[in-house]
Amino acid sequence: MNEFELLARIIPTLPGNDSLVKGAGDDCAVLDLGLKDELILLKTDAVVEDVHFTSEAPAARVGRKALGRTLSDIAAMAGKPIACLVTLGLPAEFDADFVTQFYEGLNDLAREYNVAVAGGETTRTTDKTFISIALLGTIPRQRILSRGGAKPGDAIFVTGELGGSISGKHLDFEPRIREAQWLAENFALHSMMDLSDGLAGDLRHILNASHVGAELLSSAIPISPAAKLKAKNGSSAKPPLLAALTDGEDFELLFTLPPKDAVRVLDGWKAAFPKLKLTCVGKISAEGGLRIRDKEGIRELGLRGYTHFQKS
Amino acid sequence: MNEFELLARIIPTLPGNDSLVKGAGDDCAVLDLGLKDELILLKTDAVVEDVHFTSEAPAARVGRKALGRTLSDIAAMAGKPIACLVTLGLPAEFDADFVTQFYEGLNDLAREYNVAVAGGETTRTTDKTFISIALLGTIPRQRILSRGGAKPGDAIFVTGELGGSISGKHLDFEPRIREAQWLAENFALHSMMDLSDGLAGDLRHILNASHVGAELLSSAIPISPAAKLKAKNGSSAKPPLLAALTDGEDFELLFTLPPKDAVRVLDGWKAAFPKLKLTCVGKISAEGGLRIRDKEGIRELGLRGYTHFQKS
Repeated sequence: MNEFELLARIIPTLPGNDSLVKGAGDDCAVLDLGLKDELILLKTDAVVEDVHFTSEAPAARVGRKALGRTLSDIAAMAGKPIACLVTLGLPAEFDADFVTQFYEGLNDLAREYNVAVAGGETTRTTDKTFISIALLGTIPRQRILSRGGAKPGDAIFVTGELGGSISGKHLDFEPRIREAQWLAENFALHSMMDLSDGLAGDLRHILNASHVGAELLSSAIPISPAAKLKAKNGSSAKPPLLAALTDGEDFELLFTLPPKDAVRVLDGWKAAFPKLKLTCVGKISAEGGLRIRDKEGIRELGLRGYTHFQKS
Repeated sequence: MNEFELLARIIPTLPGNDSLVKGAGDDCAVLDLGLKDELILLKTDAVVEDVHFTSEAPAARVGRKALGRTLSDIAAMAGKPIACLVTLGLPAEFDADFVTQFYEGLNDLAREYNVAVAGGETTRTTDKTFISIALLGTIPRQRILSRGGAKPGDAIFVTGELGGSISGKHLDFEPRIREAQWLAENFALHSMMDLSDGLAGDLRHILNASHVGAELLSSAIPISPAAKLKAKNGSSAKPPLLAALTDGEDFELLFTLPPKDAVRVLDGWKAAFPKLKLTCVGKISAEGGLRIRDKEGIRELGLRGYTHFQKS
């Protein structure tokens, strides 16, 4: 039994109550505490030494990343972040400079998004450092975004450029809080999430939750310079397109909206965020499955699809 | 620089915002999100394999403990717990049964206190298992309890019996949610916290935050049967009274209130919670420091105080 099968078995057993609007399975939990106009978002996320960062990573960038990941999840719901708590698991022989610089990086990002660092705790570990961040935010009551609202015909968009995050972006990415709020305020988004496991994998979460399929346009996928460079200099065996489809930790937004809004969102975006790409990468289909179209035709983007890319 | 010195340096650097009512330094963070009658409590707490539990501890009890610790912090503020998120760090070779049983124990306790388990995540660790729980709760607006409100003359109370928690209670303790709410509803508590580091150490947090001192009455300290047994059978080198003063993880309530209410709280308690002890263990003094009175007289309970106990 793998982790996903195990969680699929556990999730239905989790108790709810009258306050719970959305539980496990979306980017954030959604709670109704009786605020007139808003619902509460709650998210936790952990980063672990030698899994999500190496001991060589500058501590300030680790702090920034730890908070940034949860901000990206709040962005996925077009939420407003409010306050976080920091849990820091440290080995007995911890480095005080690491902790000080970790908080400098985290505090800087918190200030940028007006997030209160409301406390937290340090705890002892036997070996490696770990960090867990809990972030509370809000969304307007009428604006619950989820992965499950994509409709056949929807245009599929991504922000930024994809792939090669490991070269550095995974530590320095900018969570798309402002962009997501702008999108949700100006458009009737059908679904949204943040890209953490790669476009192909994450889009599948939207397809599964929405009971639809999708067709991506190969030539439209925005490939990051880092992904191209890694393929060119041999530091990655993945061709750039495969990297853009499958590399993790892009922390960009993936969303779908009705085709009639596609041109309007692109035009509005250019004016609002001139420095950040927004790209229509394909469309949602009634037929299930994930397909990709290129000059050779259209094919399923299953495990064999990836194999094909890896050989080409 | 030890952990406490380091945190003392970091805490003043943490950014706040308009929503933050109380940040680092109390049992829970307190946020004002604009609810008419309530404030939000937020707390995270981590337990780590081989630090807070051994690999022999039954998984269901580990799950119960992980959530119970945060419930105890909500109790310390007389709050109402609402929803939690669970972060589970697992080694690559994790045991599916551990995870299933962990959630059974956690879910049972969540149901007992009507807490929604609103999701969470699993993440990979390189070695040991860790768990971090984030818990959100509420308190009535007018009822912010803290460690900083103790006044000279206050009577000092503890619930339950202290010491020897490692014999089993640390895994099975009952968080004092109902008791704390009853206390806060019926009495003007001056200060409250939960006992996690031992009465002597935790009371010092109240004394420091309140700028007062205290005198404990040796014969009044409620010593748990477990602490007595451990001293008797030689499994602990601590005399029972020292264990009751310094053992960690009691997860009982420690609170102070005006002396005029001391008899009324004891009488009311007996009717409300007939199975749980409530004991007046001393009084708050204007003079700083922590003293203990026994048949030999009164002495400072500093490091030398503990040494004295350890020799006796």
